[in-house]
Amino acid sequence: MDLAQILHMNGDVEEASYANNSLVQREAISLAASSRVKAITNLYCSLCPRSFAIADLGCSSGPNTLLVTSEIIKVVEKLCKQLNHQSPEYKVFLNDLPGNDFNSIFKSLDTFKEKLRDEIETEIGPCYFSGVPGSFYGRIFPNQSLHFVHSSYSLHWLSKVPKGVDNNKGNICLLITSPSNVVKAYCEQFHIDFSLFLNCRAQELVEGGCMILTLISGYSNCWELLSKAINDMVMQGIIEEEKLNTFNLPNYFPSPSEVKLEVETEGSFSINQLEVSEVNWYSPESDMVESVVKSKRAILEPLLISHFGEGVTKEIFEHFGKILTSGISKEKAKMVNLTITLTRKP
Amino acid sequence: MDLAQILHMNGDVEEASYANNSLVQREAISLAASSRVKAITNLYCSLCPRSFAIADLGCSSGPNTLLVTSEIIKVVEKLCKQLNHQSPEYKVFLNDLPGNDFNSIFKSLDTFKEKLRDEIETEIGPCYFSGVPGSFYGRIFPNQSLHFVHSSYSLHWLSKVPKGVDNNKGNICLLITSPSNVVKAYCEQFHIDFSLFLNCRAQELVEGGCMILTLISGYSNCWELLSKAINDMVMQGIIEEEKLNTFNLPNYFPSPSEVKLEVETEGSFSINQLEVSEVNWYSPESDMVESVVKSKRAILEPLLISHFGEGVTKEIFEHFGKILTSGISKEKAKMVNLTITLTRKP
Repeated sequence: MDLAQILHMNGDVEEASYANNSLVQREAISLAASSRVKAITNLYCSLCPRSFAIADLGCSSGPNTLLVTSEIIKVVEKLCKQLNHQSPEYKVFLNDLPGNDFNSIFKSLDTFKEKLRDEIETEIGPCYFSGVPGSFYGRIFPNQSLHFVHSSYSLHWLSKVPKGVDNNKGNICLLITSPSNVVKAYCEQFHIDFSLFLNCRAQELVEGGCMILTLISGYSNCWELLSKAINDMVMQGIIEEEKLNTFNLPNYFPSPSEVKLEVETEGSFSINQLEVSEVNWYSPESDMVESVVKSKRAILEPLLISHFGEGVTKEIFEHFGKILTSGISKEKAKMVNLTITLTRKP
Repeated sequence: MDLAQILHMNGDVEEASYANNSLVQREAISLAASSRVKAITNLYCSLCPRSFAIADLGCSSGPNTLLVTSEIIKVVEKLCKQLNHQSPEYKVFLNDLPGNDFNSIFKSLDTFKEKLRDEIETEIGPCYFSGVPGSFYGRIFPNQSLHFVHSSYSLHWLSKVPKGVDNNKGNICLLITSPSNVVKAYCEQFHIDFSLFLNCRAQELVEGGCMILTLISGYSNCWELLSKAINDMVMQGIIEEEKLNTFNLPNYFPSPSEVKLEVETEGSFSINQLEVSEVNWYSPESDMVESVVKSKRAILEPLLISHFGEGVTKEIFEHFGKILTSGISKEKAKMVNLTITLTRKP
């Protein structure tokens, strides 16, 4: 399975699309806002680039795609006014895997630019947008061509399912009941992928360039419940046990110290800030079942369909919804976001 | 009508797609090959860029999209070997209107790169691809960021249908029977658009940078036959006369001297070469009817559907096919391609 071909958020603007179902991602982006403002301010004041190159890695396709870009431009424009600088030109690179729905993003750009100009009110610098397809676990930009790299909710996706996890039976990813060799294999894959990511970005960023990464950290019991849904369907004879046993998600949710250690070992970046925050991916009080199911569908559907087929995947999500409705505690519906701010060392 | 939103080649890989029906465009590209090789050779030898930035404007989405890119890289790699230079890195910018099917291009890039590496055999420089959505009748790239600009079969599309052509009754574009004010309006629109195009590119190209443009020149009686098809359908009561009278294609096929004059008047570019070649868009001997109809559908369908509706548009192309089958002479099925090679003046 070539993951880079299959892994993508549900495209277009249909009901199950990522565009319509990405509220948790939006919350993660908004939680990291103050870190970003600080980082962009430091970056602009130290480098004063006349042509400001911004990359959003794993930009997806939906209302969150241009949120951070809009914020960055606003912060820089405000600084320019305060410092009496002329606005720079902005080069915005939107990256995701080739299966991402770039067409939708591109069609929305004119409206986005218009809105941005309305909000900022004064004349802003020219903005040049481009789409850059490709896996960020490899080089995607020329040497020293970027000032600011942003990536939210993408780096917990590994480049592939690690090898040697055949005995992760009954689990759809690394879960509490996974055998220790599976834990080790996932952990090692994260190490390989994340250090490659850091190494590539180190070549692409200018000295003093900045990078902000947000990813899910620790453990997500949401995947545990989805695993339960599939296990139930195996029990009911709807899914073959073998089908479940051979399915593993390419996800790893590293701890803050694992991330810190990788950055220090790789050596190209200094850590400015490492923030950890809890978010609820589900709140039993409000009627969030439908929205949670939809958001997980938007993320996982292409992967699940390629393994289980379309009809069964639909049933998996229906059953997952029932498990949520039957009640899980608020405590169980939390997950941890990790945001790390890095500067490219000289 | 916002043309930039509606004008695009039929996307995806369905039967009527541009990808499957762009043989004449391919011929135009291959006719200009020797001019391109010469231009790229001169450019590389005079500038020796270590980071070679190439833009294809109006790249569309199909087998022709990456044809020129592949050729450029091959020429440069060959020169590098001859001159014992290290390969440069390549930055390839693929531009078209936001309605173009960029998703298809992006999905084909991995295969393209693999094939290119196989064909060149030795190690080549890193290639960074990006998609740049937007009208080339405006700035789409940062200042002095390009070395080579290529555009084939795009510049005879105007930015809009000119104003003041209401009396172009019974014609779907500028045709021999068009009144003189209509001729003037189209001609003026070309002047505005083409000089804006030159001015924008002059800012985006480095000094000594090169541009090769191929467009249809003079008169295309293919549109005349399509106009006849629609007129016949008006006679038969299938299309309202008013519908035909209010439809005009945003096309202008300038003469070589018009193009030359515009370049000289705008002043940023020197003309290296101006070539004119005849191509057959239809050959009555071979059974080309289906292929010609399909290629015109791929180009015009979105525009026609937005004006005439889907059902009627289908009938228009069927009738157009019948007119071709009923026989037109080989002499009548020629059109003129114009290729101009320009260098950005210091």
